[in-house]
Amino acid sequence: MIEYRNVRVALLGAGSVGSQVARLLLEHGDELASRAGAGLELVGIAVRDVDAQRDVDLPAELFTTDAESLILGADIVVELIGGIEPARTLVLQALQSGADVVTGNKALLATHGPELFAAAEQVGAQLYYEAAVAGAIPIIRPLHDSLAGDRIVRIMGIVNGTTNFILDLMDREGATFEDALATATELGYAEADPTADVEGYDAAQKAAILASLAFHTSVPLAAVHREGITSVTIEQVRAARKAGYVVKILATAERLTDEDGTEGVSARVYPALVPESHPLASVHGAKNAVFVEAEAAGDLMFYGAGAGGVETASAVLGDLVSAARRHVIGGPGVAESTQGALPVFPIGTVRTRYQITLHVADAPGVLSTVAGVLAKHGVSVETVEQTVASGADATATLVIGTHLARESDLANTVVALRNEDVVVEITSVLRVVGA
Amino acid sequence: MIEYRNVRVALLGAGSVGSQVARLLLEHGDELASRAGAGLELVGIAVRDVDAQRDVDLPAELFTTDAESLILGADIVVELIGGIEPARTLVLQALQSGADVVTGNKALLATHGPELFAAAEQVGAQLYYEAAVAGAIPIIRPLHDSLAGDRIVRIMGIVNGTTNFILDLMDREGATFEDALATATELGYAEADPTADVEGYDAAQKAAILASLAFHTSVPLAAVHREGITSVTIEQVRAARKAGYVVKILATAERLTDEDGTEGVSARVYPALVPESHPLASVHGAKNAVFVEAEAAGDLMFYGAGAGGVETASAVLGDLVSAARRHVIGGPGVAESTQGALPVFPIGTVRTRYQITLHVADAPGVLSTVAGVLAKHGVSVETVEQTVASGADATATLVIGTHLARESDLANTVVALRNEDVVVEITSVLRVVGA
Repeated sequence: MIEYRNVRVALLGAGSVGSQVARLLLEHGDELASRAGAGLELVGIAVRDVDAQRDVDLPAELFTTDAESLILGADIVVELIGGIEPARTLVLQALQSGADVVTGNKALLATHGPELFAAAEQVGAQLYYEAAVAGAIPIIRPLHDSLAGDRIVRIMGIVNGTTNFILDLMDREGATFEDALATATELGYAEADPTADVEGYDAAQKAAILASLAFHTSVPLAAVHREGITSVTIEQVRAARKAGYVVKILATAERLTDEDGTEGVSARVYPALVPESHPLASVHGAKNAVFVEAEAAGDLMFYGAGAGGVETASAVLGDLVSAARRHVIGGPGVAESTQGALPVFPIGTVRTRYQITLHVADAPGVLSTVAGVLAKHGVSVETVEQTVASGADATATLVIGTHLARESDLANTVVALRNEDVVVEITSVLRVVGA
Repeated sequence: MIEYRNVRVALLGAGSVGSQVARLLLEHGDELASRAGAGLELVGIAVRDVDAQRDVDLPAELFTTDAESLILGADIVVELIGGIEPARTLVLQALQSGADVVTGNKALLATHGPELFAAAEQVGAQLYYEAAVAGAIPIIRPLHDSLAGDRIVRIMGIVNGTTNFILDLMDREGATFEDALATATELGYAEADPTADVEGYDAAQKAAILASLAFHTSVPLAAVHREGITSVTIEQVRAARKAGYVVKILATAERLTDEDGTEGVSARVYPALVPESHPLASVHGAKNAVFVEAEAAGDLMFYGAGAGGVETASAVLGDLVSAARRHVIGGPGVAESTQGALPVFPIGTVRTRYQITLHVADAPGVLSTVAGVLAKHGVSVETVEQTVASGADATATLVIGTHLARESDLANTVVALRNEDVVVEITSVLRVVGA
């Protein structure tokens, strides 16, 4: 049997994921070759500084600072630089040269996805990105292939390990947000500047990618509604648990029909109450999970490590073997599905349930006033729980659970409640999902 | 743009899954066409009796009893007859005619897999079988593609919904096995003859398929060690919960190295104790889940509906779209990976932990006698808990947790304990996994 020539792999970036990809390529070469049908030859690793300290010992002769020349000699380019530039320019160069590209770059995909997919399609190259969402968890391929015959209704993902770690620590050990963040930083789960995680920017990128893929439509990052977890208090987490919920920050992508009957999609990131019995509620620590609701398949969940060098390298290598198999077979490969180009709805269109906790004056008629405000805004109440404060300040606590209502109506309701004299303070407003 | 001709799909079988596949193909034709790049034309449905009552209303003119003629005019054949014959003959005919085959037939794959894959490879046809394991859950493609660059260490699957439903009912509502089985039958989760489920035959077929795929080796059904749940008692389930465990029946596929350093695999099905904190422990009702441990990716779990007509149809349609995409692209498709042909080890080689519960005489020296039996067989004790019975019969209960030991040593230990005079009765022997 004539052996297929080696498939030439160029690696861009040798950070925590890139160095593990290089190591596994070198150490497991024979095994990967038998899976791919051809040898995978690592022809070089482009880095900014060839002398920098790396996590893994790799042959010095592989390193180069000349990414452009490296790309020109490659069948498959693996981009693990991260960020927009120079990653964007290099990925475009690789695709235009006819190379397949494997990337884990969520920022790049969320902001320049359409441009990259168009460049790939023009020359019949492929762009693989399993590692860009939820690290080691296979979610891109199941959405693209396994569920290709189904219609996805909603995706809810715990796609940021740092924030899940923080919320889990608050829930399980009663830590405040600040203490939990400090622990996360100490353990290396959070970066020195945690903004991208705790403000939901990272999750929003993943929401854009998931929504675009699941609904065969282009969802720009700017259209993703985003709320972080910096305002989540330990009191909210405690009260949630008492009521049978867990607070999780979720990236949600949903197919919707608005009141005019127009079909569209919504992508959003916010902390929400998840019932304890929901599979997402038992995702602990820095783990990730993506919960998928499909019309025929019903509820599915994909669970695993959402980050980590070697874990994410597994996803990169899976894509690499797929790309290499395609080289051995030849042919133009699988194009992206036709884009449905559904409209992306603003957050106000989404229907959700709220849990609103209020301090109110403990006086006759207060409940009726509050209920009146909700009714006036078209928000229907499902549950009310009233606790009279033991102190002498004559206030009571109301916990109101609403039925499904439009986000815009709910937001207006909260503003109106704030303006009522009988309302001392609104202590917590959280969405309830999965119940 | 010239449109690709329709891809011709022949359906064999119109049971609960087949009729849903036909319905979705007819109802969602345009959407599926845009995903596949070509129309999917259902050219006919082969059944034994064209006049039989069906779950779904389908055009009468599609039905035929002549499966062989139907196959000859098809690009893709979907086999949902189940069982060995005539499914085996028809699938072979389809593959030999050059058609791709999509099947959900676990019995056929577990017993004749190598023959079918060889037939497919000979003509460059593809055999897809996502629906054969864990219904709607994408597990075959993630193992075949997403984890192609990783090395799978172990798979533990809740792959039979009926038995998970029964064990869950015993755990959550304190039902006996008999009562839980009766409820499962009443609700349609168990068949009139529940043997295939409760004795683990169904799970064993899935274990063989998962082990073959995960370890790129051929694991015959006969090599799968199998124990069902008929002997699981409510007392065992209660005691497990008290000790922080849940009893689950698991299909396990594992890569092992025996004492001679020989690499091999093991496939087995048995009820086992799973720690409450393990993701598999919170898989309730008739749901399925497959827990995968990979060298680089770490722990992954895939969760969802393991059965059901429309749910399983989702997996079939995903395969169908993949097969159709391949027709549009042309080319020989992705061959199975090179088979590693690792030896399949017998159950005795496997190292596991046991929890042994004994009634013993409440007399001095008993613990030392019992401990001596374990030590003699090379089984090391991790925990012992002794409870003295309140009654007048002068017996005590010992619950022994062992360290990892060879299954054969553990089995010999149990036999030896049974022969000790101080041992009144061995009330429970269960394996402990995932701890």
